[in-house]
Amino acid sequence: MSVEVAQRYFELMDSSDAGTDDVIELYAEDPVVHSSRAGVVRGREEIRQFYEDNAEFFTGGAHHMEAFHQDGNVVVCEGYLDGETAVGRSADGVPLCDVMEFNDDDEIVAFRAYLDYRGYVDEVPEDVPNVRAEATSEDA
Amino acid sequence: MSVEVAQRYFELMDSSDAGTDDVIELYAEDPVVHSSRAGVVRGREEIRQFYEDNAEFFTGGAHHMEAFHQDGNVVVCEGYLDGETAVGRSADGVPLCDVMEFNDDDEIVAFRAYLDYRGYVDEVPEDVPNVRAEATSEDA
Repeated sequence: MSVEVAQRYFELMDSSDAGTDDVIELYAEDPVVHSSRAGVVRGREEIRQFYEDNAEFFTGGAHHMEAFHQDGNVVVCEGYLDGETAVGRSADGVPLCDVMEFNDDDEIVAFRAYLDYRGYVDEVPEDVPNVRAEATSEDA
Repeated sequence: MSVEVAQRYFELMDSSDAGTDDVIELYAEDPVVHSSRAGVVRGREEIRQFYEDNAEFFTGGAHHMEAFHQDGNVVVCEGYLDGETAVGRSADGVPLCDVMEFNDDDEIVAFRAYLDYRGYVDEVPEDVPNVRAEATSEDA
């Protein structure tokens, strides 16, 4: 059941015992991730790097998931995110909505991350780093 | 059908002929809107003001909707947004995900707006206005 995989995804993301490998196992062979921080990321190896960068970029994150909406092979996950980013923003109850598309084996083929960024906006530093450029330079 | 109402919502939002009244008619008696710009907005009159502020805040907006996912009385709408904000950010293909909850009469009882804000991040001005505070002061 795709919803159970989606629930497991957030458990793994918040677990101090789980590693990137555990998260990557939920993905299919040739997946794609869309996110604010890194843009479009394709393929398991790039996505592995994305999660490893994430772990550095976003520390102490905890998800509080509220609802999982399923329509066919799509599961839409709504909840809240707590944590801090390496560029000086802290998230305290930032609403998030992650859309996961699954194949028939309940593996994630596409992941699109959306935020209601109001939790960030009030705490934005005066000089806002370009997080996308920083993510790219981290890869270099 | 809730999906048709969701589709009509975006047609109205992008139509130069439609006004706030047309959008508000899609809402139920006592709805709630969650958005990055204005936080939590309750009730038809407050939501009407929210849309009128929106029209000033966000100009020339156009939605390009890609998918509508339905699970019971929830419709999740994914697409892209173009336009410009009054505080100097322009949106060019900003991914958005709007979650609409309907009652049995296909009226919107809850609306939660999420963005993938990467379309904004590259063009953020040096001094970032506090859009939430500005929205509040507009109401005053």
